[in-house]
Amino acid sequence: MKILIPFDGRNPKTRLSQTLSPEERSEFSAAMLEDVLDAIPSDSLDPEVVTTEPFDRDPGVETSTSSEPLNSVVNSYIDSTVPVAVVMADLPLIRTEQVERLLETPGDVVLAPGIGGGTNALVVRNQSFSVDYHGVSVRDHQRIARNRGLSTTKVDSYRLGLDVDEPSDLIEVLLHSSGRAADWLESNGFEIVEPGGRPTVARESD
Amino acid sequence: MKILIPFDGRNPKTRLSQTLSPEERSEFSAAMLEDVLDAIPSDSLDPEVVTTEPFDRDPGVETSTSSEPLNSVVNSYIDSTVPVAVVMADLPLIRTEQVERLLETPGDVVLAPGIGGGTNALVVRNQSFSVDYHGVSVRDHQRIARNRGLSTTKVDSYRLGLDVDEPSDLIEVLLHSSGRAADWLESNGFEIVEPGGRPTVARESD
Repeated sequence: MKILIPFDGRNPKTRLSQTLSPEERSEFSAAMLEDVLDAIPSDSLDPEVVTTEPFDRDPGVETSTSSEPLNSVVNSYIDSTVPVAVVMADLPLIRTEQVERLLETPGDVVLAPGIGGGTNALVVRNQSFSVDYHGVSVRDHQRIARNRGLSTTKVDSYRLGLDVDEPSDLIEVLLHSSGRAADWLESNGFEIVEPGGRPTVARESD
Repeated sequence: MKILIPFDGRNPKTRLSQTLSPEERSEFSAAMLEDVLDAIPSDSLDPEVVTTEPFDRDPGVETSTSSEPLNSVVNSYIDSTVPVAVVMADLPLIRTEQVERLLETPGDVVLAPGIGGGTNALVVRNQSFSVDYHGVSVRDHQRIARNRGLSTTKVDSYRLGLDVDEPSDLIEVLLHSSGRAADWLESNGFEIVEPGGRPTVARESD
């Protein structure tokens, strides 16, 4: 099955700007993408990174570049072939087990919700579905499916639910992953601290 | 199996104080507790609400009051009998399916991580374990188990991971539950809005 992994090769993870420099955001995003790719068994599946413009790392899998918005890119894939899966590139807690759970879950449309209303992973098995990733997409995707008479199933996964957008998400990477993004954070001085008993992530002073 | 549900009957959910009045926090917390109790099949399991002081609602199950700190209460239970489970009272996304997954997961100690490093649900099958709920408890519980030669398993569940502490957590209740806490929020004017494209929860003006 084709698994699309949308990746912003240009200016990723802007909401981490207070914590990471542009170059660091680029490195950390690439590490998260590698964690996602590491979780996808490429001997049995067909991962493809889709990016808005070429980026200077070789992800080791098929990569396509499109200036089209994400919704158009994904909907073109759905129009051409189903089933197709879409897995976001900022899920460093993902493991092969979660990819398998996602693909084994029945339903015309399978949704893995992200914290705050996003759709972190998706399987589409019917061509009458289309995606709309803006706003509260997990709700919108349920509505779109319902309007077209399609069944939806939600996957109950913490590891798929944790997309990394904000500095407060970084603690999840250090707690629940030993992959490349976690390595990158540790190598760059990030650690868990508990000021006043509330756990967070801080960076060692240089 | 005994399932302990710690509940703060006195001044619950202080981090929601900017959004909810003390009386509303009390009502909303009781609704979340009821969602948790609704998810526990009481014909086959033995739920018990443990609270710091008596509260003015009848949860419909065994309730015990203790002035001891939570760690002492839970560790006393572990000393007297295992297996025992501990499920937090602020998990309104929980369903029977998650309780079953928790109890079916093998391991001397089974942990359901909460966002930010907490331990939202726990099964203890060996009396040499003890809990420590302060700080980054999911990491501390893994360390305690390791030091005592016990195996730990993490349950990968979004619905168990989402404890409601902050106003930003309320969107999860509206998106992923149709239980009593969700009803309470809707009845009290809360709805999902998208100012500037970032989904959040707002309250209708009176």
